[in-house]
Amino acid sequence: MAQHSIARTWRKKLHQQLDPKALPVPRLSRLNQVLIGIILLSVLNTVLESEPTIADGHHQLFVGLDIGFGLLFTVEYFARLWVCVENPAYGHGWRGRWRYVRTPAALFDLLALMPLVFHIIGGEAYLFRLFRVIRVLRLAKLGRFFGAAHLLGQAIFMRRYELMVGAALALMLLLISSTLLYLVEGAAQPQAFGSIPRSMWWAIATLTTVGYGDVVPHTPLGKMLAGLTAMLGIGLIAVPTGILSAAFSDALQQQRKARDRVDEDISL
Amino acid sequence: MAQHSIARTWRKKLHQQLDPKALPVPRLSRLNQVLIGIILLSVLNTVLESEPTIADGHHQLFVGLDIGFGLLFTVEYFARLWVCVENPAYGHGWRGRWRYVRTPAALFDLLALMPLVFHIIGGEAYLFRLFRVIRVLRLAKLGRFFGAAHLLGQAIFMRRYELMVGAALALMLLLISSTLLYLVEGAAQPQAFGSIPRSMWWAIATLTTVGYGDVVPHTPLGKMLAGLTAMLGIGLIAVPTGILSAAFSDALQQQRKARDRVDEDISL
Amino acid sequence: MAQHSIARTWRKKLHQQLDPKALPVPRLSRLNQVLIGIILLSVLNTVLESEPTIADGHHQLFVGLDIGFGLLFTVEYFARLWVCVENPAYGHGWRGRWRYVRTPAALFDLLALMPLVFHIIGGEAYLFRLFRVIRVLRLAKLGRFFGAAHLLGQAIFMRRYELMVGAALALMLLLISSTLLYLVEGAAQPQAFGSIPRSMWWAIATLTTVGYGDVVPHTPLGKMLAGLTAMLGIGLIAVPTGILSAAFSDALQQQRKARDRVDEDISL
Amino acid sequence: MAQHSIARTWRKKLHQQLDPKALPVPRLSRLNQVLIGIILLSVLNTVLESEPTIADGHHQLFVGLDIGFGLLFTVEYFARLWVCVENPAYGHGWRGRWRYVRTPAALFDLLALMPLVFHIIGGEAYLFRLFRVIRVLRLAKLGRFFGAAHLLGQAIFMRRYELMVGAALALMLLLISSTLLYLVEGAAQPQAFGSIPRSMWWAIATLTTVGYGDVVPHTPLGKMLAGLTAMLGIGLIAVPTGILSAAFSDALQQQRKARDRVDEDISL
Repeated sequence: MAQHSIARTWRKKLHQQLDPKALPVPRLSRLNQVLIGIILLSVLNTVLESEPTIADGHHQLFVGLDIGFGLLFTVEYFARLWVCVENPAYGHGWRGRWRYVRTPAALFDLLALMPLVFHIIGGEAYLFRLFRVIRVLRLAKLGRFFGAAHLLGQAIFMRRYELMVGAALALMLLLISSTLLYLVEGAAQPQAFGSIPRSMWWAIATLTTVGYGDVVPHTPLGKMLAGLTAMLGIGLIAVPTGILSAAFSDALQQQRKARDRVDEDISL
Repeated sequence: MAQHSIARTWRKKLHQQLDPKALPVPRLSRLNQVLIGIILLSVLNTVLESEPTIADGHHQLFVGLDIGFGLLFTVEYFARLWVCVENPAYGHGWRGRWRYVRTPAALFDLLALMPLVFHIIGGEAYLFRLFRVIRVLRLAKLGRFFGAAHLLGQAIFMRRYELMVGAALALMLLLISSTLLYLVEGAAQPQAFGSIPRSMWWAIATLTTVGYGDVVPHTPLGKMLAGLTAMLGIGLIAVPTGILSAAFSDALQQQRKARDRVDEDISL
Repeated sequence: MAQHSIARTWRKKLHQQLDPKALPVPRLSRLNQVLIGIILLSVLNTVLESEPTIADGHHQLFVGLDIGFGLLFTVEYFARLWVCVENPAYGHGWRGRWRYVRTPAALFDLLALMPLVFHIIGGEAYLFRLFRVIRVLRLAKLGRFFGAAHLLGQAIFMRRYELMVGAALALMLLLISSTLLYLVEGAAQPQAFGSIPRSMWWAIATLTTVGYGDVVPHTPLGKMLAGLTAMLGIGLIAVPTGILSAAFSDALQQQRKARDRVDEDISL
Repeated sequence: MAQHSIARTWRKKLHQQLDPKALPVPRLSRLNQVLIGIILLSVLNTVLESEPTIADGHHQLFVGLDIGFGLLFTVEYFARLWVCVENPAYGHGWRGRWRYVRTPAALFDLLALMPLVFHIIGGEAYLFRLFRVIRVLRLAKLGRFFGAAHLLGQAIFMRRYELMVGAALALMLLLISSTLLYLVEGAAQPQAFGSIPRSMWWAIATLTTVGYGDVVPHTPLGKMLAGLTAMLGIGLIAVPTGILSAAFSDALQQQRKARDRVDEDISL
């Protein structure tokens, strides 16, 4: 009985360390700070391992570290599984745990364990390893950053139809400009403009104002159309930027009004 | 009489399928969703046909598909012509149909049939084929996307004079910077800066911050002027973006005010 | 006496044709529309004359046209000088004319006559010829475009200190990043990064996101610093754009408030 | 006694010349204007000294000038140390001076003296010399520019969490796109895409829309992913720009409200 109670106390303590919202005042516990550090180190490990001038001759070390990180994340996964029932949202016993396992956050944690499996069965798992960095978002999902991310997300969500219309117009512009350049420049430079998909490589670099310059029209008419495309590319940048800035302004005002309303209710 | 009535019933049903606004609650009918899919497929067909590594040896297939799409759009055109009289806006009989035929939407549909004509009489019709993608806009012209497109269009329309003044200033900047580079760099690089039109190719790539890098000034004075041009290019991006974001903010506020006014009128 | 009176009537009529604000309802008179067309043609003449593939062998024609445009502008200048006394702002007689001559607009018109002088005494005058295009602004200074240009100008003027602070920060960023690249990359690429002024060419292309790519760091540390500079370059674009869009929003709101106040005063 | 009093009077006068806020109406005194000029000259001296085509053969001159500037700044430093006790914020005697010495502004002034030390003990000190340009900010910290800088700084500070979230998303995008290109393009171009850090050079140039074009994917799949990255790069620019413009709008409105409130309080 006493032993059972001690386990309970420990589970509760660990839950408060793992779940930022379990604390009376939500904040990032020491354990979660350490976990964020480990996640970032595991990503750095993956990035450096890919660079031959750094990793050659130390392959065993990098693989060993990655297996180590994988084991740590496995321990973390089972720890979270153990303590999740402390959260009333999931409920008691194995049913509560099964409910937790199917949440997107837990599924993501499971995905972050895949590299360990790949190390055992073999095969590259770079992308899975990088997914770990997205787990940082989950642990940081509180307090100030959460409020900021919520504001950004809300602003983008509220204007999603305007952004989609902007994206549709951009795709049409891309299609039309690459077809025009294909017709005008295709004969002069078949390698670069000899088909609509080939012209698209140039068109996308121009419309986004990236402008690699590896492919450039040579005929006077092609240059005229390219100049026009570059000018329209400014619109391609201006429209989403304008939508987003209006959306952020709007979201900020709504937030302030909501706060003022709360203040008024309190003062009444 | 009965047969006539059956035809009427069918015409009404087909009208509701073809015109999103004919339904009690405007939405995209199953038939219109299929039509949007076919339009996108016909555009994809055109894009892929132009790429030799994909289309070589399968030319017949791509041409056949395009003729097929053209026939489908012809059927659609006549179906729309048949049912248009259900819409009270055009009126009954051939007069109503003639009124419909002259609407921009119907003229655009007719234009989208041109590739079929070109297949018969011969000749390239890439641009006509791509016009089909613009028809998507017409079919999607409802509900949420319509509201969003309307908001964007209204914002741009309301500030059209500011945008035109911005464009005029941009053209002057383009003219002045390309003349300066022609005077300063023309002697050193006659091929690239040997005339004002030639310098314009460089100037437009710099002012839009595309920066292909195929043509670059070599003299110290030319580089100084190019640096100045690049800095002014930021203004060229900042001015329309700023106008558009102010316009979107303004349009959003007007929309909200109008909605609040309606709410007030109802509550009174 | 009668002759004097006829001259007066003609002078008044010509004044109304030349000065948009002399008309009861300000608009662009037919004569001013023609003048704008001539100005644009004279600029096009200058641009095309510089291109050898177009102008070679027709030099006499282009020079002749430019002399013709110069004579037309001379006639216009003296016509404006004759009618300016109709505007009560300048006053009667030669004093009024002397006052008009010293206005910036009239001085600009005088500058636009310089190419004619250069044709007589010899020497190139490309920039003077292009100044003519700026005269378009003067003639278009009315009605809708004037309101739009005024709004833009006012918004920029109101936030001029913020824009200057932004420009000062940009210059510091330019100085610091080009010094760092000079120290890091100077030894590896003396031609491109061998001095602070040389590094500036790279730094300006990177910070403005033009990115010609003619000069690029090769050392790992240089690339890291370049990546950081490119990221900061986004801030360089975001700050003035943000200032301008806030300024335009603000100017629009002020304009609307001022209009509402006028409406209220009328309704009271 | 009299001598003591004369020293006091001089100290007070010098304090008013050196500290913009010591004057009844804060403004930039003549002495401070001269100091700003000297700072800019010393930076120009450093920039030009680095350019061999200008400095070769005149090395002694440039070094001499820099030592001269260093001595001037040393005199200025001790002058400020002498007069600082006039400012009641620091208090009297050596304690007040010691308090002043530890302020960030005074520490920065001390740092600006380092190049002189390096001239004596030997060694390059380019960055220290450039730090002098940042001292301009300190001297200009008043009046209109101060208000503008304060507004900008406040706007950025108020939205710092949103900007950090945007930066975190940008870093994730950078990590994911460079990993994808490494996997897809690494085999075809080991030099450019053979590791994640190598791919990052390309990814950063693309996401920031700089687009040097020295490294470009060659495989069709690589080009597709690069096109997608370039499109997402627009979001990377749009998000911080949108946040900043909303923040500036908000800061402007707060400022205006605060001013209106003051006006109301006065009129009550």
